Amino acid sequence: MAKTLEFFFDYASPYSYLASEQVEALAERTGAELRWRLFLLGAVFKATGNVPPISNPSKAGYLGKDLLDWCRYQGLPELRMPEAFPVNSLKADRLGLVAAEQGRIAAFSHATYRAAFVEGKDLGDPKVLQELARAAGLEPEAALARSETQEIKDALRRNTEEAVSRGAFGAPTFFVGEDMYFGNDRLVLVERALRAA
Amino acid sequence: MAKTLEFFFDYASPYSYLASEQVEALAERTGAELRWRLFLLGAVFKATGNVPPISNPSKAGYLGKDLLDWCRYQGLPELRMPEAFPVNSLKADRLGLVAAEQGRIAAFSHATYRAAFVEGKDLGDPKVLQELARAAGLEPEAALARSETQEIKDALRRNTEEAVSRGAFGAPTFFVGEDMYFGNDRLVLVERALRAA
Repeated sequence: MAKTLEFFFDYASPYSYLASEQVEALAERTGAELRWRLFLLGAVFKATGNVPPISNPSKAGYLGKDLLDWCRYQGLPELRMPEAFPVNSLKADRLGLVAAEQGRIAAFSHATYRAAFVEGKDLGDPKVLQELARAAGLEPEAALARSETQEIKDALRRNTEEAVSRGAFGAPTFFVGEDMYFGNDRLVLVERALRAA
Repeated sequence: MAKTLEFFFDYASPYSYLASEQVEALAERTGAELRWRLFLLGAVFKATGNVPPISNPSKAGYLGKDLLDWCRYQGLPELRMPEAFPVNSLKADRLGLVAAEQGRIAAFSHATYRAAFVEGKDLGDPKVLQELARAAGLEPEAALARSETQEIKDALRRNTEEAVSRGAFGAPTFFVGEDMYFGNDRLVLVERALRAA
């Protein structure tokens, strides 16, 4: 049976951005099938009573430094927090589901994360979303219209409910079977699990 | 100038236990001087408004699994949560400062962490503390008496206040100069910083 790596993420999450830059290579070298699965992080926090780490002032300063450290460690451009932070990612997340339907989820996710966390763009801005759809090879107007349908809204909600019911409380969250891992910093453990699988 | 790795830890913290099993080898291979620095994690939480991750029920189950994953990854024996958890580490922390005065901090820390997180012993039990002092090459009665002096109590408080004033909000916390790192999972970043220093 094929090994699968499920990657639950939200475009609002900078640590999921860091993971998005690693998951393809990891899946490749472990022979796993990668499933990009969007969910809504705010709804995960609400359902679990968890809070974003940035909500504690003593951690907030460290988080920015920690993200920069990881960018250097991973060889990524310097991370820039979007002016509109926390990121309002709802529309981008829905558009990501449309990209997934069209087989463009990896391209759309890289474009979207880089727009948010390298270029500091506002993912709540419809013009930014149009550019991202185009960059990922989607037809922007049709894709945006599709992203606002009830079907897509429900799909995002279902992914979120599923992740929470399987134990998720933050992002990124990974599953190897029902074996859950939380955080970009757990990819070394994910890799170990995939090699053993 | 010598490179220094400061390791702030508390015997109540299982993630600090994981780090304690790595810091000596890391310091050795990067040519850094290791400083074991006890502080009181409960007081750090109180001062910063931070909470232990286990206090969120959605995270609590994952934490135990995550600790086991790291033990396997690091090649450590299966971690066992002490029956008395959260660990009442105050007396052990003070005794650790006495061990440090006598050049026995590494031996005492390994013995104490393994007693708590491998054997599941209660660090609040004076008999356990006596055994640990003896195992680390201390004279048990004299060391325990010394650990209850105002001088040692003040030293633990000062370490705690210093760590908080330098930005710490949890354990383990590492400093390379004033460059702070939080968590056993950040040792890869600590190593990178020490190599660059």
